[in-house]
Amino acid sequence: MTSATTLDRPARRLGAGERRDQLVRVGLDVLHELPFDQLTADTVAQRAGVSKGLVFHYFPTNRDLHVAVLRAATAELVARIDTDHDATPGDRLRLGVAAFVDYIEQQPSSYRAISRGAGSDAQLVEVFEETRASVVAIIERAAGFDRLPPGLLLAARGWIALVEESVLHWIDNGGLTRDDLVDFLHRAALTLLADPIAVAGLSLLPGAPPRPR
Amino acid sequence: MTSATTLDRPARRLGAGERRDQLVRVGLDVLHELPFDQLTADTVAQRAGVSKGLVFHYFPTNRDLHVAVLRAATAELVARIDTDHDATPGDRLRLGVAAFVDYIEQQPSSYRAISRGAGSDAQLVEVFEETRASVVAIIERAAGFDRLPPGLLLAARGWIALVEESVLHWIDNGGLTRDDLVDFLHRAALTLLADPIAVAGLSLLPGAPPRPR
Repeated sequence: MTSATTLDRPARRLGAGERRDQLVRVGLDVLHELPFDQLTADTVAQRAGVSKGLVFHYFPTNRDLHVAVLRAATAELVARIDTDHDATPGDRLRLGVAAFVDYIEQQPSSYRAISRGAGSDAQLVEVFEETRASVVAIIERAAGFDRLPPGLLLAARGWIALVEESVLHWIDNGGLTRDDLVDFLHRAALTLLADPIAVAGLSLLPGAPPRPR
Repeated sequence: MTSATTLDRPARRLGAGERRDQLVRVGLDVLHELPFDQLTADTVAQRAGVSKGLVFHYFPTNRDLHVAVLRAATAELVARIDTDHDATPGDRLRLGVAAFVDYIEQQPSSYRAISRGAGSDAQLVEVFEETRASVVAIIERAAGFDRLPPGLLLAARGWIALVEESVLHWIDNGGLTRDDLVDFLHRAALTLLADPIAVAGLSLLPGAPPRPR
């Protein structure tokens, strides 16, 4: 990653940090609107009305651009999932599942690229892992744990994979209403995270709080 | 895919089909024993005691070799999962889950490459999809359907993703016994496939048989 603390060309009214943020926001728009392979310095420069060289100044390779934009997309997802802290854990889970479904639905091309095409590049695998870890952290907080015990962590990771696959499958094949899909994934979370094996993992964590439901 | 119907060099005692099968078997051994990126014409030629040129005759590119070996690996998995037709559907499911876990456990490197690194190549995505479709077909037969209704198909696909992620996570992190893992995935299948939303899909399929449990 480049840290844009110096500029070797004029910043055109924006400071370095602001310019970088602007390019990332333009990248996010591209991600939402076009297939993932069109997220390039060319496209971003054109949309931002700047030179390709300026984009390269902040993101020396397309890979650097991808990583920055996908990290921003993850932050966007997390902000959307982790809302309404006054709601009950059950309601928050339902809202979080709905936000996760929305998010994947809005950008299936990029999500597919992240979740299925990332294996060949270590940096993209890392971004993909950050996304999943962020969702796990939200489940942790919602369930009142500092750190999920092993059985619950495995169940949470498995559930995230179930959500990703189910939503991508649903986008391609339909067959259920959106509400039914969210209900199914919500109940799956409750069932899988309350599974006896998942909960038995509690005994492996010294000082774990009592099960929250 | 090459169809090895003609040979432009002597077959060295083996017929064309036999030679191709032999090379695929050697490739499967490599897949089981080494990281996925070592599945190359070089490695296969060395292990089979033949020239690299002969391997290239049957598999013009390493990608062709990968596709043939991964297809054979899928066939191997399906044969292992789809056993014991005299057992009850519940028992068959438990045996199938255990076989699936075994299989991923025996070759995590290749499985990770298939399930997480395949997106960038259309042929490998296709092989990966064939594997999932084969598991869906086994669930279909076990559940007594010609074709799963939409809700059940979505649940089955989601469950397969849950299994893949859970087993890879378990290999890296442990925290549960193997039996507990298989029990968790077995119960997850029963719960997800019996979910009201999944089962509601039945009404969308004219002439669907009554729910089998």
